[in-house]
Amino acid sequence: MSQKGLLTVVSGFSGAGKGTLMKALLAKYADRYALSISATTRGPREGEQDGREYFFLKKEEFEQMIEEDALIEHAQYVGNYYGTPKKYVMEQREAGKDVLLEIEIQGALKVKEKFPDTLLIFVTPPSAKELESRLRGRGTETAEVIEKRLARAGEEAVYMDQYDYILVNDDLDTCVEELHHLIQSQHARSEENREFCAQMNQELQVYRK
Amino acid sequence: MSQKGLLTVVSGFSGAGKGTLMKALLAKYADRYALSISATTRGPREGEQDGREYFFLKKEEFEQMIEEDALIEHAQYVGNYYGTPKKYVMEQREAGKDVLLEIEIQGALKVKEKFPDTLLIFVTPPSAKELESRLRGRGTETAEVIEKRLARAGEEAVYMDQYDYILVNDDLDTCVEELHHLIQSQHARSEENREFCAQMNQELQVYRK
Repeated sequence: MSQKGLLTVVSGFSGAGKGTLMKALLAKYADRYALSISATTRGPREGEQDGREYFFLKKEEFEQMIEEDALIEHAQYVGNYYGTPKKYVMEQREAGKDVLLEIEIQGALKVKEKFPDTLLIFVTPPSAKELESRLRGRGTETAEVIEKRLARAGEEAVYMDQYDYILVNDDLDTCVEELHHLIQSQHARSEENREFCAQMNQELQVYRK
Repeated sequence: MSQKGLLTVVSGFSGAGKGTLMKALLAKYADRYALSISATTRGPREGEQDGREYFFLKKEEFEQMIEEDALIEHAQYVGNYYGTPKKYVMEQREAGKDVLLEIEIQGALKVKEKFPDTLLIFVTPPSAKELESRLRGRGTETAEVIEKRLARAGEEAVYMDQYDYILVNDDLDTCVEELHHLIQSQHARSEENREFCAQMNQELQVYRK
């Protein structure tokens, strides 16, 4: 069917397991997917590598990209820019890879507005209780950070039904398969197969009386 | 996620392999799907059984069903009525089964208009040439019947892009899996999970500052 790769935006509550899910999907179906890497003007943290976690740019470089419309979306957060470089996404899609983009809700809705064929998927634990227990269970964050994340989840929940699909991450392996099938199914969408339909239509007209 | 069954309408060219596809899907995932059986006023043909191929009704019975709005859609064809009884579809969906309905295009579009959450899937061979060779290869029909089917395919092709998904039936086993994953993925649609989203939203509001 459609050979061009799709753009899928994945968002979800902190603690929903998005990161693990994406990693598992990319590991299992490496030839099918490409992960879009964001650009940022904030400095790299320990262990972060340019071109792996982020493309680390100078403020002027980032502003030039905005100027040149070279970003799919961008936002400012605590004084730094974050954004999605357009070139990589386009190249990968043209090469037939389905591109995954992990960004927060406001960015996701902006991408959908600009590119309506984008697939928006929201990842969530099966319940609020489960979200809280996952966040507290990590044991790596202070109570204050956990409260902040839960407060943010409350803000984000308002928008979750604006996504195309809601993916409940209960069991990781099941969720990876669901995500994979969900994205692959979208290649069969009519909108992705306009050319095929037009050709079938054209070829079959000769048989009409 | 959503527990209520979905309604999926499958249409496609004669020779696309719809019948075989549906049978294989129902055989492989018997607990997941239910096949809707149409009602008709035409008489049973040899080997046909009431309640298996069709519900065979008297004209007055059928017209009473129309009167009582007991059909999802109905049409007249060569002097006989054909239609989809509503009750069975509703019962199966309530019981959590995904209901499959194999009807022609005009009926399919009517169902979608009446029930916008219906999934419309159009099954097609990979090319017009392949369709023709499948029809001729059967060796069971006269040249005249084959010409008629091809002419009808030409008429139907005009509408195929009005379906939600285009399913290319090249290899049967692959196609069964694609159809299964396509339908199952739709349970994750936002529209199917309004209640879940509303509940998550409500539960998470307590954490907001």
